[in-house]
Amino acid sequence: MSQSFPDASKMSSSPGGGTAAYQRASARFREASALSFGLAFLHWDQSVLMPKGSGERRAELHGALAGLRHRLIADPRLREDLDEAEPPADATEDTQAFAAANLREMRRAVAHAAAVPEDLQERLVIQAARTEMVWEKAREADDFAAFAEPLETLLGLVREAAQARGEALGLSPYDALLDQYDPGLRASAIDPIFADLRKALPGLLDEVRERQAGDPPLAPLPLSEAQQKEIGLRLIEVFGFPATHGRLDESPHPFSSGMPGDLRITTRYSPTDPLSGFMAMVHETGHAMYENNLPADWIYQPVGEARGMSAHEAISLTFEMQWCRSRAFAGPFAALLAQAGLKISPQDLTHHIQRVTPGFIRVDADEVTYPLHVILRYELEQALLSGDLAVRDLPGAWQEGFEALLGLRPPTDREGCLQDVHWAGGAFGYFPTYALGACLASQIRLRMAEEIDLAAALSKGDLAMPVAWLKEHVFAQASLWETPDLVEQVTGKPLGADALLAHLRERYIDRAF
Amino acid sequence: MSQSFPDASKMSSSPGGGTAAYQRASARFREASALSFGLAFLHWDQSVLMPKGSGERRAELHGALAGLRHRLIADPRLREDLDEAEPPADATEDTQAFAAANLREMRRAVAHAAAVPEDLQERLVIQAARTEMVWEKAREADDFAAFAEPLETLLGLVREAAQARGEALGLSPYDALLDQYDPGLRASAIDPIFADLRKALPGLLDEVRERQAGDPPLAPLPLSEAQQKEIGLRLIEVFGFPATHGRLDESPHPFSSGMPGDLRITTRYSPTDPLSGFMAMVHETGHAMYENNLPADWIYQPVGEARGMSAHEAISLTFEMQWCRSRAFAGPFAALLAQAGLKISPQDLTHHIQRVTPGFIRVDADEVTYPLHVILRYELEQALLSGDLAVRDLPGAWQEGFEALLGLRPPTDREGCLQDVHWAGGAFGYFPTYALGACLASQIRLRMAEEIDLAAALSKGDLAMPVAWLKEHVFAQASLWETPDLVEQVTGKPLGADALLAHLRERYIDRAF
Repeated sequence: MSQSFPDASKMSSSPGGGTAAYQRASARFREASALSFGLAFLHWDQSVLMPKGSGERRAELHGALAGLRHRLIADPRLREDLDEAEPPADATEDTQAFAAANLREMRRAVAHAAAVPEDLQERLVIQAARTEMVWEKAREADDFAAFAEPLETLLGLVREAAQARGEALGLSPYDALLDQYDPGLRASAIDPIFADLRKALPGLLDEVRERQAGDPPLAPLPLSEAQQKEIGLRLIEVFGFPATHGRLDESPHPFSSGMPGDLRITTRYSPTDPLSGFMAMVHETGHAMYENNLPADWIYQPVGEARGMSAHEAISLTFEMQWCRSRAFAGPFAALLAQAGLKISPQDLTHHIQRVTPGFIRVDADEVTYPLHVILRYELEQALLSGDLAVRDLPGAWQEGFEALLGLRPPTDREGCLQDVHWAGGAFGYFPTYALGACLASQIRLRMAEEIDLAAALSKGDLAMPVAWLKEHVFAQASLWETPDLVEQVTGKPLGADALLAHLRERYIDRAF
Repeated sequence: MSQSFPDASKMSSSPGGGTAAYQRASARFREASALSFGLAFLHWDQSVLMPKGSGERRAELHGALAGLRHRLIADPRLREDLDEAEPPADATEDTQAFAAANLREMRRAVAHAAAVPEDLQERLVIQAARTEMVWEKAREADDFAAFAEPLETLLGLVREAAQARGEALGLSPYDALLDQYDPGLRASAIDPIFADLRKALPGLLDEVRERQAGDPPLAPLPLSEAQQKEIGLRLIEVFGFPATHGRLDESPHPFSSGMPGDLRITTRYSPTDPLSGFMAMVHETGHAMYENNLPADWIYQPVGEARGMSAHEAISLTFEMQWCRSRAFAGPFAALLAQAGLKISPQDLTHHIQRVTPGFIRVDADEVTYPLHVILRYELEQALLSGDLAVRDLPGAWQEGFEALLGLRPPTDREGCLQDVHWAGGAFGYFPTYALGACLASQIRLRMAEEIDLAAALSKGDLAMPVAWLKEHVFAQASLWETPDLVEQVTGKPLGADALLAHLRERYIDRAF
């Protein structure tokens, strides 16, 4: 027999050893991780192929499984175990470091889980589900009034939960929300970065638009859905997506799910704009590659998880923005399109994928304007949480803020404060990670450039070396460090706006990347 | 808002009330059921669309979730709760009956889970996975020798577990295995039924073959895969399958999975024999309809589950054998085929779906020979478990037994004792449920005929009334009774061979149904 089988004795314990209390805690987290992976596949199923009448039953099932996961982690006996747990002292240096970080991450998870009283958590989950359903219709009907009341109720619960979380963790309420998505990240670190972006981007945007003013208009790129899928599969293989360990499907909002060793990414196909679908695939491939290359021994432990949302977004933006939209990759990319009979020069393709056009919708935004969309949301969600901004005043505040940042006024709330699901789903503190990911992606490229000729790799369409670099420096580190420490370890400096601004200038003014 | 949302307070407790200990136990079983439903979707995913390289990781995930489920049920504190639990005394009569039965079923589940020591259970699961993988190759290569050793090891563990289960439940080892699949079912009840079938069927088979000797040869029925799928979807809708709450997909072995409200059935498409795929769909629709019509308030509780494997098979055989293969339904069935351009008379269609031909493979067997396949396995698995039959002597015993029952000698083990996965997967005590299901399906038809003109419903292709009858008398009862009591409640008599034998004679000798 050449197959290897799971070893039961290994399955129930941590790979690192440690005291009995440490082992018990780690076995408990193994169960919680299994539930998370199971839920990931269930969510994928729900988004991609679930029968359309099954939503209510499915919501109940997901609620029950998430509730079980919460109970396992909030169990007081787990807290006792973690109080006395000691990681192994006799393992390899590497294992010891991971095991110690695992203890830190287990404690963080328990602190977060225990911070919010169970009935508050339940009310929050139910109100979020309700608000999301109202939001869906309100957006469609451009009817903010219908959305305001459930959002108000939800905001009250989010505020209460943020307060409780903050007290338990010794953080401000907003920092406590941030800490869920990016451990160690604080508003005090974000503020100066966003201030720099806020200051530089509007002027840069004007410069870029002037620079692009004489560029040719973008002709439509006709590709059938079948062709888009065929090219897409080849494209993501270039970026390392493993065909035998993953699936590409369709969904209205592209996403990445699954678990290491079984990656599920989705995209959407547009008859008039195939490039947006390709970019979504490559973006999600970045997320999937991060997950797939986490250290195998630790995937069922908190330390084995990807290090938060900013880092995750940094990788997806590295794949999409830094690599796939680069001038250097336009050659191999155009060659792929030519295989399906679509003839376009690398230069024209670059015009398509580097065109900057301010618009109202965040998910359609280009690299230059995107951070401004995020900054608006960052400021507004803090004002909503603190009570400085009343829900009823949100549409007006949005319009003013948007005009100040991007020089345009959204004609409807549908194109304004109703466009995103995040707040409707109770996810406050999440938005900044998108723009911080862009900053980190640029810092990663700078650091990588010290060792690798990235432009050469991109123009050959051979990404083995850049991907290997990410594997070693980012993916293999999993959650060994908190987010700010990971940034310093990987890029040699704290997170800032400089690298992103330099990148944007290099690409859109100097036309050099 | 007209949507209804899950009510958190309701979600964590039993619908029936009861003492605090009862409520705690019932909340625990709610978690276990959620895990079972989650695993059902994960198994469906694995069989239908999982990337082919992801099997090992997936096995580990399923193992972790099944292990968690087992830990929740084997928890000593749950046993304490069940010792002192009391079901509600102040609810409606119906609720009280279900709640009391729920306590009985919770206790049974705990007794089964606690009976087998955890490390034995783990070794069993791992050895079963290993044996199944060896079996797959051994069957392909017709190489019993390669299979014998892992089966021997597995059998030792199954024997040990059956012993432990029997001691804990006060049953013989084999009865303890049966009790897992059909609560209350004992070998002493099966023996006389199988003795009657063993006595009657070989003679009946000769008579049937003589009766069919002059029938026309069966011409191939050409239908493309797309046509088979289109007709299939219409066909299963006739049998009540809800298109908005279910999916039809493909897999090498047809099966039914999912949960109430989200049914997943599969079939396979054959270019030369489309009828086998249609029959598989209708068979699986029977299983799915049972699940989908379980009492909604109880679906997360043990009493809310379908009542065991014999009853489940009785329903799928009612749909496939009793209804879809009936002479009366051949009219509407032929009309469906005609819509896809396939012209066949109801009479010719009946020749196809009622043809009896002894063969070596159980899953391809007709209604007359099928029970003989099962009886052989029932006798052999008991001999293997008791040690009366050594694993190395299995191929010979199979050939002799098969010849004695069916008058044919399998030329290979591939067409003999290597054909089924059950023993390789450690499922001993499962086979009899197939034949008992056939007996029960015939008894159900007799009882239903007292109230409903089934032939009229079938010839109109309108199954609303027969399905409603099953809903009321079988589906809505869920696990209110143990299997033998359910049989008596539904059919008015204990399970026996008479109704099946009468049905076979009516259909294949009198050609009347």
